Amino acid sequence: MLNRGGMKETQRAMKEILDHLNGVPEKLNDKQVDDLINILLSAKRVFVVGAGRSGLVAKAFAMRLMHLNMDVYVIGETITPSLQEGDVLVAVSGSGETDLIVESARIAKKVGTKIVAITSYPKSSLAKLARHAILLPGRREVAFTSAFMKRELIGEYASLAPLGTLFEATALLFLDSVVASLMVKLGRKEEELRARHATIE
Amino acid sequence: MLNRGGMKETQRAMKEILDHLNGVPEKLNDKQVDDLINILLSAKRVFVVGAGRSGLVAKAFAMRLMHLNMDVYVIGETITPSLQEGDVLVAVSGSGETDLIVESARIAKKVGTKIVAITSYPKSSLAKLARHAILLPGRREVAFTSAFMKRELIGEYASLAPLGTLFEATALLFLDSVVASLMVKLGRKEEELRARHATIE
Amino acid sequence: MLNRGGMKETQRAMKEILDHLNGVPEKLNDKQVDDLINILLSAKRVFVVGAGRSGLVAKAFAMRLMHLNMDVYVIGETITPSLQEGDVLVAVSGSGETDLIVESARIAKKVGTKIVAITSYPKSSLAKLARHAILLPGRREVAFTSAFMKRELIGEYASLAPLGTLFEATALLFLDSVVASLMVKLGRKEEELRARHATIE
Amino acid sequence: MLNRGGMKETQRAMKEILDHLNGVPEKLNDKQVDDLINILLSAKRVFVVGAGRSGLVAKAFAMRLMHLNMDVYVIGETITPSLQEGDVLVAVSGSGETDLIVESARIAKKVGTKIVAITSYPKSSLAKLARHAILLPGRREVAFTSAFMKRELIGEYASLAPLGTLFEATALLFLDSVVASLMVKLGRKEEELRARHATIE
Repeated sequence: MLNRGGMKETQRAMKEILDHLNGVPEKLNDKQVDDLINILLSAKRVFVVGAGRSGLVAKAFAMRLMHLNMDVYVIGETITPSLQEGDVLVAVSGSGETDLIVESARIAKKVGTKIVAITSYPKSSLAKLARHAILLPGRREVAFTSAFMKRELIGEYASLAPLGTLFEATALLFLDSVVASLMVKLGRKEEELRARHATIE
Repeated sequence: MLNRGGMKETQRAMKEILDHLNGVPEKLNDKQVDDLINILLSAKRVFVVGAGRSGLVAKAFAMRLMHLNMDVYVIGETITPSLQEGDVLVAVSGSGETDLIVESARIAKKVGTKIVAITSYPKSSLAKLARHAILLPGRREVAFTSAFMKRELIGEYASLAPLGTLFEATALLFLDSVVASLMVKLGRKEEELRARHATIE
Repeated sequence: MLNRGGMKETQRAMKEILDHLNGVPEKLNDKQVDDLINILLSAKRVFVVGAGRSGLVAKAFAMRLMHLNMDVYVIGETITPSLQEGDVLVAVSGSGETDLIVESARIAKKVGTKIVAITSYPKSSLAKLARHAILLPGRREVAFTSAFMKRELIGEYASLAPLGTLFEATALLFLDSVVASLMVKLGRKEEELRARHATIE
Repeated sequence: MLNRGGMKETQRAMKEILDHLNGVPEKLNDKQVDDLINILLSAKRVFVVGAGRSGLVAKAFAMRLMHLNMDVYVIGETITPSLQEGDVLVAVSGSGETDLIVESARIAKKVGTKIVAITSYPKSSLAKLARHAILLPGRREVAFTSAFMKRELIGEYASLAPLGTLFEATALLFLDSVVASLMVKLGRKEEELRARHATIE
């Protein structure tokens, strides 16, 4: 089966994802973001957790925190130690209802860890467990803020950015920007990040 | 240390990443993209490989190919089998010089696997090994296409999207759009993707 | 600090682990093992799950099932699909109380997956959820079966095979032996396994 | 297909693996083991690397070093930083010829990292790159030391412990014993290890 015009859908999908991403900055809550940065800067150690593609975004964030010379661990990886007082758990879940992530946050909370939720749903189980929730627009938010968008259109839109695609792209964009902010706050130069970048890869 | 105005840098970084991403669609080579989609559609099985954050993007892509019901594996994961004739290896590396990725492509090529490189550098070791290279703009390309951007400005820009940040965000955006194109070509509905989404997570 | 006689403790620890392992064959329940092999042979697909070092043993087992050409997936890895009727989940947990593993088994059971527990504790949450439990001797069992071993001695023993060490070594030995049994039942030759062994590593 | 007597092969395989493991202690070179323990005790940080099932054994070892409160990282995981002077890389490969592991050791050596090889082959590429090699008996060694074992018998033996099974079981047994030795040298109690064991799993 030869593809003709695969480029067309690729371009359309890219534009739709970009439309969503371009709307993200104005939807962020300034105080939530400032709080997140303060929490990260004052954390003894940061642990991240997420499942599926949200878990990959959580890892991408953790890698940059390591480059920034922060003490950071990924739940489920080999050398992740026990939680202690003063630790922060950043949990990434668009729905805020991912079973093992909510369960992880519950366990962490029991031992006194501060939970930060990165999610689209302020009333989700994860957001309710969290001390701080950063609300990132996922698919529903786009629909919600666009009064003229009909159900059918949303349906079609959805099909080009299936499942959690918009949330995941948003979370990567947002967390990379938080990294930039931390770089400035901590006075780290890119050269310092590069110096900590894995040697073997 | 209390953070003040962390939001400002976060917003600035987000805008800079978005500026980059918004320029991606027009920089893509139509034929390269159509070829990639044809290669994926006619592949017996698809293997993906990448290191660091590029590796996370490669995994995010692989997960969607699984949702699309394609036969896909991640190099280095537990149940990844041997390569066979007709297999395709998608290798993601911004620089195209990541040691273990270039070495992986070399090994794959020796056994007759078709290599597809996702990279910013057409003359990189990886691109040279590959049968097909998809060139995605990373940091250098931005600088290159913006005649008015001064060296100093680039330097500052760079510091808010350090190391491979722009390439990685571009690769996620691009590969998610390729997924959309594959959905359309294969006639897969979002509900079918959801039905294959991991049950335990 | 120069080490003197490190070899002595290493040898002592090795002998103690071996003492435990040598007692494993007679402690196995024939019917449990035959049932496990039948379940694996008749499974549509096998999923494995485990946390920490038990999770590593589960992965080592999954890799061999792949070499045997069985359809197998590791919970939490990138391309692991949804559970379907006829699937089997092999859950490895010495205590049978590892939170996320018990929760995973609960989710799997809800969608009709057959659970097999590899554990030391027949009354654990995991064993109770499971349709079949294979009981493997961990530390407690050793103590229990050795009437002459004093509490103090057990304490010292324990310190040279800390935490789940004995269970994990037992689980690897046992599951590798199950692999041998499956090879014979399926008539697979080692050369066939080698042919499926990952090309890139 | 109903299994009858699956237990028989399982028991036979278990006994054969145990025969191999019981021969390990006397085949170890005291000086090699003492040197390894000294290297680990004086390392600034320990990095481990391995592919396939050897990689899983390397991770099982790294997890225990973390429990012992040593600074340890796994090559390829998210938060693994750059190598620095004084770091040690423990590379696990039965054949000593696993491509990406040899390449990793080469890269590490270039930046001045001390390489320790855990392998069966003293003349392998990995052993030659390493400053210290710990020789562990794998399949060939068993054959070699048993003068009465015929080629045909070895072939049958091999089929019940396919590919690297004997080396991997040996490496887990050996490295767990090294952990015991480190516990004694460092004066760590099991309770201290338990206190560092991952909270979320």
